[in-house]
Amino acid sequence: MFNKVLIANRGEIALRVLRACKELGIATVAVHSTADNAAMHVRLADESVCIGPPPARDSYLNIPQILAACEISGADAVHPGYGFLSENARFADILEAHNIAFIGPTAEHIRVMGDKIEAKRTAKALGIPVVPGSAGAVTDDGEAMRVAQEIGFPVLVKASAGGGGRGMKVAHTPADLSMALSTARAEAGAAFGDDAVYLEKYLGKPRHIEVQVFGDGMGKAVHLGERDCSLQRRHQKVWEEARSPALDDAQRLRIGEICANAMAQMKYRGAGTIEFLYENGEFYFIEMNTRLQVEHPVTEAITGLDLVHEQIRVAAGLGLSVTQDDVKFNGHAIECRINAEDPRTFAPSPGQISYYHAPGGLGVRVDSGVYQGYSIPPFYDSLIGKLIVHGRTRNECLMRLRRALDEIIVDGVKTTLPLFQDLVENPDIQAGDYDIHWLEQYLAAAAKAA
Amino acid sequence: MFNKVLIANRGEIALRVLRACKELGIATVAVHSTADNAAMHVRLADESVCIGPPPARDSYLNIPQILAACEISGADAVHPGYGFLSENARFADILEAHNIAFIGPTAEHIRVMGDKIEAKRTAKALGIPVVPGSAGAVTDDGEAMRVAQEIGFPVLVKASAGGGGRGMKVAHTPADLSMALSTARAEAGAAFGDDAVYLEKYLGKPRHIEVQVFGDGMGKAVHLGERDCSLQRRHQKVWEEARSPALDDAQRLRIGEICANAMAQMKYRGAGTIEFLYENGEFYFIEMNTRLQVEHPVTEAITGLDLVHEQIRVAAGLGLSVTQDDVKFNGHAIECRINAEDPRTFAPSPGQISYYHAPGGLGVRVDSGVYQGYSIPPFYDSLIGKLIVHGRTRNECLMRLRRALDEIIVDGVKTTLPLFQDLVENPDIQAGDYDIHWLEQYLAAAAKAA
Repeated sequence: MFNKVLIANRGEIALRVLRACKELGIATVAVHSTADNAAMHVRLADESVCIGPPPARDSYLNIPQILAACEISGADAVHPGYGFLSENARFADILEAHNIAFIGPTAEHIRVMGDKIEAKRTAKALGIPVVPGSAGAVTDDGEAMRVAQEIGFPVLVKASAGGGGRGMKVAHTPADLSMALSTARAEAGAAFGDDAVYLEKYLGKPRHIEVQVFGDGMGKAVHLGERDCSLQRRHQKVWEEARSPALDDAQRLRIGEICANAMAQMKYRGAGTIEFLYENGEFYFIEMNTRLQVEHPVTEAITGLDLVHEQIRVAAGLGLSVTQDDVKFNGHAIECRINAEDPRTFAPSPGQISYYHAPGGLGVRVDSGVYQGYSIPPFYDSLIGKLIVHGRTRNECLMRLRRALDEIIVDGVKTTLPLFQDLVENPDIQAGDYDIHWLEQYLAAAAKAA
Repeated sequence: MFNKVLIANRGEIALRVLRACKELGIATVAVHSTADNAAMHVRLADESVCIGPPPARDSYLNIPQILAACEISGADAVHPGYGFLSENARFADILEAHNIAFIGPTAEHIRVMGDKIEAKRTAKALGIPVVPGSAGAVTDDGEAMRVAQEIGFPVLVKASAGGGGRGMKVAHTPADLSMALSTARAEAGAAFGDDAVYLEKYLGKPRHIEVQVFGDGMGKAVHLGERDCSLQRRHQKVWEEARSPALDDAQRLRIGEICANAMAQMKYRGAGTIEFLYENGEFYFIEMNTRLQVEHPVTEAITGLDLVHEQIRVAAGLGLSVTQDDVKFNGHAIECRINAEDPRTFAPSPGQISYYHAPGGLGVRVDSGVYQGYSIPPFYDSLIGKLIVHGRTRNECLMRLRRALDEIIVDGVKTTLPLFQDLVENPDIQAGDYDIHWLEQYLAAAAKAA
């Protein structure tokens, strides 16, 4: 086991990792910017090293400074948290070259999965379902029609060189296709100087469902079920739950086994998340995140496993503490991301927390680095805490969330707590009936009504 | 299901019950003394009624005032918590006469188990093991020797009219017995004017192990495993854990089944705890508590059940949500009772909490009615909160407790937190090797060393 772990992150995830290290009897080193001198993980770490000023590129993203902190403190491993350097293959390589363990996958796996095209190719080769479409650009309308008939309407015509929605058209029926192709080609040509387009199956109302995987780096891997993260605003997850209200046990196990088998084949090491769009019983690979996710606690709640303990075990070469047969799913869990933001405009709201009271009792977990008197700096993302509730059923979980939201107090800054108070009362949310567009539509309607 | 529950208690347990009611969609009525106007359960309840001044006999123990509060608020059920009126059979009777449900057992069962002699007789008749001894007083030394040989040395000679340790002698060997009998008789005659003595098996280093039972009042009952509450100071539990470090699964199931069968036979309704002394593989009934216990959260942690939800279900006639086969024990849990007391002298330390920060993260639960700025009144017991940790193994649980104790901050009053910081580092505690005398001996040694 490691003697000393340096935590190359800040905020709630730095505290999360610190807690796990303490529980495993490992000494901890916090690194922090000058804006984070008073952060809770700095106060609770065995040692701390200041690695520069904000913004992050001058401290949390500054690899030489972090290496120096490792050298000064004698840390034998680094946990990168999420964000910052967590999916930086070069950082993993450099640590390895300095004989410091990177608590994460190999640099090679970070690279493969960090490249969208290579990730999709790899996923497909490993048996993970991907969005069906044409094999490359379609130049001929007849060929396009054959492909569209094969994958089924509606289909999406996308610019090969594209991005940001330009050169992207939906054809709902065969009659739409020819117009969609010509419009997309024209837009693509104008926007990118390249009128090549390709076809993909169009998903109208998909959910975002992701599978938590864990590999030991030696060819053994497990899945820990799925999370439903469909409630998003501007591609940022807001509310996550496990299990997904949309899946039955057979679907859950089928996609879980596919993912675990893929990870075993590639000898994946550590925690990973395979993200899918899900519609009409089918999963379509989006990407893989080769790190711990913000929303990992809902998986911990239903499996009883500590994912950071497992990450550290695996990085130390001790293997996973469980086999697939040991993994059981108990009840339901929901996580709300509490941001220091105006709940209507989502404008960041940094500043001092004048009063803070965490909710407690059965089935309630709070992961937060803030405390009363703490000043939220303006330099980083606005996540100030996560409220995670667990219950035997989804309904119990929702009722528990409601009462926990009644108890929590964060004064002095604006937070997104009022949004969750609204969501928990919403019939669609209560029914689990939402897709990846639901929250944006809900917010647009609420803004209109206001 | 009930529409409105009146919570006839204060402090952390009032909040505990309030949370459960909210989670079940039941309206809540808080009652409170004038000293508890600012209590958290009063702030969070749908309604509150002031029922008089401190001390408790003028408010929390004042049955007419509580009945009036039921009438004013229209509550259709009362949850008594623990202490106060929770084991008052007359209160249960009066509520029933007013068509208000008492969330607890029948008045008859409270009465039977509230009388020590009748409780022991009932327990024995129901197949629950009791301390072996003579059938009544022993007048003849030869008879005493026969009984002693039968139950095995050491034996305790106790005054029939006794109490408080007077007229109580231990005979470790047959050679000691005659002297023990004559000394005990002499002390008993002098102290109580009655020199009758009886024999009981002497337990030198027992543990306190209790079994959580639950009956539906209709002849179905389950056990939810045991709790080890051996760490006591002046018969007050300080640290409780589930499961007991002393039991194996076979012992656990054997005593659990005995207790569940007994409860089924008596058609017990609601939550109950059957307390035992345990030594050398044998259980000896002490008493039964016909209410929720302070330490119920450790059972909730390892079973995943919400015991207050179950109490309310059963009182509403909906039966238990589980059968014995559904009850599974997962991992290990420890509860520390945080008292506002000097950690050396145990003198109460009421006053204002100037800073409060609750620990968080995976496997940590805090049940507390206090908050920053709250003034602990001097009129009630000094329990201000419970820290409950859960882990997959006892060792993980201990490590998690240690890190949670590093995080918690309660400033402005003295608390027993330093005691737990010491206990968690103690080799006997870490080994689970302690009996009901351990803590008193530890505290005496610490006092001497200081």
